[in-house]
Amino acid sequence: MPFDRSGLEILGDAECWALLESAPLGRIVFTDRALPAIQPVNFALCDGDVIIRTSPGSKLAAATRGAIVAFEADHFDTTTRTGWSVVAIGPARTVTDPHELTALQQLPLRPWGPSVHDHFIRIRPEILTGRRIPANTTTPVPR
Amino acid sequence: MPFDRSGLEILGDAECWALLESAPLGRIVFTDRALPAIQPVNFALCDGDVIIRTSPGSKLAAATRGAIVAFEADHFDTTTRTGWSVVAIGPARTVTDPHELTALQQLPLRPWGPSVHDHFIRIRPEILTGRRIPANTTTPVPR
Repeated sequence: MPFDRSGLEILGDAECWALLESAPLGRIVFTDRALPAIQPVNFALCDGDVIIRTSPGSKLAAATRGAIVAFEADHFDTTTRTGWSVVAIGPARTVTDPHELTALQQLPLRPWGPSVHDHFIRIRPEILTGRRIPANTTTPVPR
Repeated sequence: MPFDRSGLEILGDAECWALLESAPLGRIVFTDRALPAIQPVNFALCDGDVIIRTSPGSKLAAATRGAIVAFEADHFDTTTRTGWSVVAIGPARTVTDPHELTALQQLPLRPWGPSVHDHFIRIRPEILTGRRIPANTTTPVPR
């Protein structure tokens, strides 16, 4: 099992995908008027892409159009102080093709918020990284 | 109670701070070699600043030095599909003053990971925003 310099377990691609599949929501990281921005979103996976539904006039829709974004999901257990985080980085695009839209509308992706969410953002992960804090490692190790 | 264009409840500063206080961990959003980056971290609040502990040689330490970063915490309930998110944006700096370091070392901020975390990053929030998905709003409203 490989570890990074911080002693965190490095997760392989298959495990990263399985963890993303298990996550009810994630966070999209982008730039909004030159400032770092982050927004929690629910999502679905489709053919190796991350699919997000938002409202057409949203800040998220405007700021992610054609941008390179990060998408993150994680789960931590505050009792055992263990957990994992997966980050996918890649270009985001607005889905405009009617056939593609019809397909995405069939995904189990029901918006949590109250507004109309008929705008689909599709992120193609080009860099996928995952880390896990293993159990019983909360005592600092000597450098 | 004010709502934004997406129908999410806009949280006031006092509530944002109370929610941050309640969160066991958050996520720091920064730029790493021109790419969006995000890393879960545990943290403490001190005099209105967000305090993060990391290892001196970490990517986080290098990439956040003097940068404008975002810090996010959230909590969502997948059953009721409600929850909140708070984002603080501001400059991050490495704490080097010995007196300040001594004070921060007294904070209840124990690293979760296994490596040495004797490097303190201090974020001064200049923009604080919070949103909540209110209950019973999962049905889209007409535009």
